[in-house]
Amino acid sequence: MKLEQRIQLEKIFGPEQVLTAVEDMVAYSYDASHAEVQPEAVVFATTTEQVSELMRFAYREGIPVTPRGQGSGLSGGSVPIKRGIVLAMDRMNRVLDFDPANRLITVEAGLTTAAIDPIVAAANLFYPPDPGSVTFSTIGGNVAENAGGLRGLKYGVTKDYVKMMKVVLPQGDIVILGNKCVKHVAGFNMEGIFVGSEGLLGIMTEVTLALLPIPAHRESALAIFNSLDDAARSVAAIIAAGVTPSTMEFIDRATINAIQDFKDCGLPRDAEAVLLLETDGEKHSAEAEMARVEIEVAANQARSFVRAKSAEERDRLFAGRRVALNALARVRPNLILEDATVMRSKLPEMVRGISSIARRHGLQVGIFGHAGDGNLHPTFLLDMRDPDEMARTELAVTELFQLAIDLEGTISGEHGVGVEKKPFLERQIGSAGIALLQNIKKTFDPLNLLNPGKMFDMPVESAV
Amino acid sequence: MKLEQRIQLEKIFGPEQVLTAVEDMVAYSYDASHAEVQPEAVVFATTTEQVSELMRFAYREGIPVTPRGQGSGLSGGSVPIKRGIVLAMDRMNRVLDFDPANRLITVEAGLTTAAIDPIVAAANLFYPPDPGSVTFSTIGGNVAENAGGLRGLKYGVTKDYVKMMKVVLPQGDIVILGNKCVKHVAGFNMEGIFVGSEGLLGIMTEVTLALLPIPAHRESALAIFNSLDDAARSVAAIIAAGVTPSTMEFIDRATINAIQDFKDCGLPRDAEAVLLLETDGEKHSAEAEMARVEIEVAANQARSFVRAKSAEERDRLFAGRRVALNALARVRPNLILEDATVMRSKLPEMVRGISSIARRHGLQVGIFGHAGDGNLHPTFLLDMRDPDEMARTELAVTELFQLAIDLEGTISGEHGVGVEKKPFLERQIGSAGIALLQNIKKTFDPLNLLNPGKMFDMPVESAV
Repeated sequence: MKLEQRIQLEKIFGPEQVLTAVEDMVAYSYDASHAEVQPEAVVFATTTEQVSELMRFAYREGIPVTPRGQGSGLSGGSVPIKRGIVLAMDRMNRVLDFDPANRLITVEAGLTTAAIDPIVAAANLFYPPDPGSVTFSTIGGNVAENAGGLRGLKYGVTKDYVKMMKVVLPQGDIVILGNKCVKHVAGFNMEGIFVGSEGLLGIMTEVTLALLPIPAHRESALAIFNSLDDAARSVAAIIAAGVTPSTMEFIDRATINAIQDFKDCGLPRDAEAVLLLETDGEKHSAEAEMARVEIEVAANQARSFVRAKSAEERDRLFAGRRVALNALARVRPNLILEDATVMRSKLPEMVRGISSIARRHGLQVGIFGHAGDGNLHPTFLLDMRDPDEMARTELAVTELFQLAIDLEGTISGEHGVGVEKKPFLERQIGSAGIALLQNIKKTFDPLNLLNPGKMFDMPVESAV
Repeated sequence: MKLEQRIQLEKIFGPEQVLTAVEDMVAYSYDASHAEVQPEAVVFATTTEQVSELMRFAYREGIPVTPRGQGSGLSGGSVPIKRGIVLAMDRMNRVLDFDPANRLITVEAGLTTAAIDPIVAAANLFYPPDPGSVTFSTIGGNVAENAGGLRGLKYGVTKDYVKMMKVVLPQGDIVILGNKCVKHVAGFNMEGIFVGSEGLLGIMTEVTLALLPIPAHRESALAIFNSLDDAARSVAAIIAAGVTPSTMEFIDRATINAIQDFKDCGLPRDAEAVLLLETDGEKHSAEAEMARVEIEVAANQARSFVRAKSAEERDRLFAGRRVALNALARVRPNLILEDATVMRSKLPEMVRGISSIARRHGLQVGIFGHAGDGNLHPTFLLDMRDPDEMARTELAVTELFQLAIDLEGTISGEHGVGVEKKPFLERQIGSAGIALLQNIKKTFDPLNLLNPGKMFDMPVESAV
């Protein structure tokens, strides 16, 4: 970065809010994916106006800008792969307005998602989306990636809760998109297209989110199966019975054993699969739903069904699920966590397919995830320093995506495309689909300066 | 329309599917708004490929195309205000796939919305959005307008149920947008921007919709108030108590009296307002919620609270709400039904404001609508042949929109912008907001041939 450019940035943000030292560039070169590129500068925004000035500056100078929350993304969304400036949003973290009467909260984009619940709990409200990263990822990142989580089946995902946002467009204009009303149809659903736009269309600086009343009661249980198919059939039977559990998590045998090696969470090493189940709502209703769940899993050969009788028992049941990823991470030096997703009716086929892909390529895989919404996390375990194993894993991942597409699923349920899945998007949405995305991108960002190189390539990359 | 153009259309659709006679043009010149323009031809599509060929033809010849469902829209969305061709979609009305395991149904866009429930009820499922027009409007129209309805507070609106769609883009390309999975983040949320796009961005020919289990039980009640403020405070108190009724309809004194003049529905002529309430879910839970509703309305001076003890009693309670619009239509020769919407906390101010606007301009107004989601339907009663009364009504409507905007609300909660609200959109979303919509429109439809003249004007209208 030229000195006069750095001086310009310091004018906008103040000298302390601009980093260019190499050790800082290293710190901002990666996220939770495997992508890694050092920026030329990092700036910390505290106001929407600064973000607007930054984008006007970037457009004058032709410098790429990559917005960043807490860098916890799994697809490389916040990695500055065309270098330029990383715009760190995590100091814009104020709560601007909590409106219990309308069940709304307005926050700055850099607020940690889990910071919302303690604030709104006073009015008996909660914010439903709960990605695994909820305690450290930001609302802005969650909105940019349309984050999901464990409760997707019953409560939906981030896009179902975003009502309104303040956005800085790539050329610096500030616009308000959406509306605080429950119903709003004046103009296109612009806030809708920003959710999941992965920082390609604009920078959200403020977001208004809808909240829901905290369910009065939760029922939790663990169902243990000797066969994958019995577990999958149970999921289908529960849904067919009209029950919508708030959580229905699947863990396979490989993951169970990794968990038990890591820490005794009381999971049976010889089970082929377990389901962790939760129903919620008014007490009688949550209990009635869990009773129905018990009937359905029994009818599908669950070998046991354990209900939590207290909050402590619930925590114990769910402890295994919470440590699953850490436990798998210990098995081999590296892991590749995927989120290829199918409709829940295709789960048995998907699980069998993943196992068969891993076997064919001689790879270790653990499968766990959100069975209720078909969003599994097949996790390949490997040593990335072994070029042969790495090559086999890349083949396996490609086959995994193709399998999801063949089953009418999606290459990404909740992690986004970013850098990691960019080579596979066209397989899913076709060249006409890609052309549509390129046209939208070009409309918003004609010089391709905002988070360039993500999701898809532009027909002619700008000369930056 | 030139003869060779008509011949081209007949080649695409078959001679019987092309109308050009003047009496047919009259029949397709209007919808349920006050807009009226005759097209030059009407065509009936039965396949997506025909729609694609039509758009290629329209682009070659520079002819505007306006898609149309059943013409029940309230904002002029399907009126061909630049003439050209009306594309009637109501013969594309097949159910393509019902998938109870994944709680999905895929239908052609011309299917009547109310046709879905009888099909999916067999699997104990239902399609929640219930606009007033549900028995005659089409799914395509509902999606294009992002239709709402009585259950918006608890169940959301059309956009919350649209998973995937087949779309013909303005230049004839056929694309699939969205995905059948619960979670899907591969590419921008394109299906999201099509919901509520009012036929400006493309023509949906097939739509996959999410379904929900039918609630096991419903509780219904009527609360009667001597003061508007007591009714409004009750709405706030019910929400604050953590209850989310599936229906919470408001009817004011003027509307009550119009209803009673029309047909005795047992509503008290001397009440200032009534609330019609419904809770649903598991039996015990719906009952507990209604018990809580009763406590809250009693605490807010409801003068009486009547609970329905049977389906017949429920039908009797709700009969008044159902005939409200017809009843108001009898009072004067014409009515102008609006859907300006505010957050529910602003309802008392909105209701007082509407009354005051009507009084100031010497106009009759009836107010009813969806109190739970702040979506009221203030309905001005007038004789449009009286130029003075018409002018006063236009002033009143303008003030109504400004009031909604001043209260952080929206000029349209569920009817759309179309022709009717086009002059007011910029007041709400600003010139930067309009520019953004224009850019999006131009990206999809560079010659402005698909439903031109709606929602906003283009900077340079194409020379058609």
